[in-house]
Amino acid sequence: MKTALIQQKYHSSKQKTIEKTLQMIDNTDAQLVVLQELHQTEYFCQSEDTKFFDYANDYQKDIEFWQNVSKRKNIVLVTSLFEKRADGIYHNTAYVFDKGVLAGKYRKMHIPDDPGFYEKFYFTIGDIGFEPIDTSVGRLGVLVCWDQWYPEAARIMALKGAEVLIYPTAIGWLECPKDRLDELCEKENTPQERQKMLDAWINVQRGHAIANTIPVISVNRVGSEKDSSGVLEGIKFWGNSFVVGAQGEFLARGGMEEEIIEVEIDLQAGKEIRKIWPFLRDRRIESYECLLKRYCRC
Amino acid sequence: MKTALIQQKYHSSKQKTIEKTLQMIDNTDAQLVVLQELHQTEYFCQSEDTKFFDYANDYQKDIEFWQNVSKRKNIVLVTSLFEKRADGIYHNTAYVFDKGVLAGKYRKMHIPDDPGFYEKFYFTIGDIGFEPIDTSVGRLGVLVCWDQWYPEAARIMALKGAEVLIYPTAIGWLECPKDRLDELCEKENTPQERQKMLDAWINVQRGHAIANTIPVISVNRVGSEKDSSGVLEGIKFWGNSFVVGAQGEFLARGGMEEEIIEVEIDLQAGKEIRKIWPFLRDRRIESYECLLKRYCRC
Repeated sequence: MKTALIQQKYHSSKQKTIEKTLQMIDNTDAQLVVLQELHQTEYFCQSEDTKFFDYANDYQKDIEFWQNVSKRKNIVLVTSLFEKRADGIYHNTAYVFDKGVLAGKYRKMHIPDDPGFYEKFYFTIGDIGFEPIDTSVGRLGVLVCWDQWYPEAARIMALKGAEVLIYPTAIGWLECPKDRLDELCEKENTPQERQKMLDAWINVQRGHAIANTIPVISVNRVGSEKDSSGVLEGIKFWGNSFVVGAQGEFLARGGMEEEIIEVEIDLQAGKEIRKIWPFLRDRRIESYECLLKRYCRC
Repeated sequence: MKTALIQQKYHSSKQKTIEKTLQMIDNTDAQLVVLQELHQTEYFCQSEDTKFFDYANDYQKDIEFWQNVSKRKNIVLVTSLFEKRADGIYHNTAYVFDKGVLAGKYRKMHIPDDPGFYEKFYFTIGDIGFEPIDTSVGRLGVLVCWDQWYPEAARIMALKGAEVLIYPTAIGWLECPKDRLDELCEKENTPQERQKMLDAWINVQRGHAIANTIPVISVNRVGSEKDSSGVLEGIKFWGNSFVVGAQGEFLARGGMEEEIIEVEIDLQAGKEIRKIWPFLRDRRIESYECLLKRYCRC
């Protein structure tokens, strides 16, 4: 399965950003194309501002637009849109199109909230659970960003037959204010701490590939984006989009610039490995009740 | 917390192997000492032979012996013993001693069975679940070998307050018979495939550290051991015992020879990281039912 990860910047407007996305899509002949989280716009969750809900007003048009792209290019296309479901109910939703047909959607289940990533203000938690999406290239376990820190999400997708995990993502380092180096920011911004965060992000996802013996595709944005509220300086998105195989081995890895990362992924490889590393066989399901609790001591 | 991982070979007999273990323990002033899986003997699960059950006959004496070592050295000691519970019920059990007191035990919950690792013949699945063990150095989430491929086990330990995960292990590559290179063996023994297996073993455990924001200690044996049945050639245990911090960063890593790996582990570090990376806060426990099923499609 020839796959392309579109790792890109925000280009000052929704229109220009989409133009760039289309240009990149036109430059690959991949069967499966995966876009990054909220790829149409800036990562607006850096501050809590009601004006940004307007981005979701056109979501029906957005769906039609990307559906048409999928049809024109004859591809499976994983998008990440800002869904307005009702006044006061918005979702961070991945829509998957298969050669012009809406194959399915996934509403982000785990919603973060930490300085610079105020997603709980914008996104209602998903309520359609962890359901893989069947397409002509395979059964896709589409999850989004913060989900990538949760082995539960990856495992459930695998137990529902997902043949690959796919994470559109927007993650990076907080930029330090030039005139006001607070302690947290300074600590986060040493090269060692930055590397540790990036490595953690990559390795937790490699862990999902290994534990579930399926490949993982993760697509992150690049570029620096200002916090429009001026409270924080902004975020430097660290790119490093990657694909690992069913044993967590790198098949492709991007840098920190805009790029199309093309890679051939064999969805059969993991199925062979599961015969000799049969982790799913030995799960102690009768002893996992604690997993359904918030905490298991008090 | 000064910690020592005792990575060692099997020295042709139980007695000589224990002598070597004691020598190594005497060469460290660590507060927490972790031994490898089934450290008293060879890894006898390479074949299914009833004679090996005799190793478990002295398990009460073994417990007393290591309890005394823990007392004499004034340390927390994590051991891995072959427990005879009744005729026909044996366990692969980690006993933890705290300065001469039995602090607790963990009976291996996930039992492997694949060529060279016929553990299902010897070990009954554990029935005391995933319970951390409280000691003077902290609450230890002790698991054993095959458990390391299961995010469920790591997560449950974390949800029960474990401050560190500890895996005594015996894992390596199958040796290829010199006169009969079968396909599986040949495939497993290319340097690339060997590296992929080793990396998978390390990275899945790094994933547990990251997802649960606690350090991981993993102690593996080294050396080549023959299959006494002669069916397979034997196993080359790959060592590489390691410690990673709460973001999966390496704090220490061994090679493939006998060695004492000493490292300072800060159990507070992960607690600070959980404030800014609060993964446990956002778990969607109402949507995790599938985790208690064998498979969620049919």
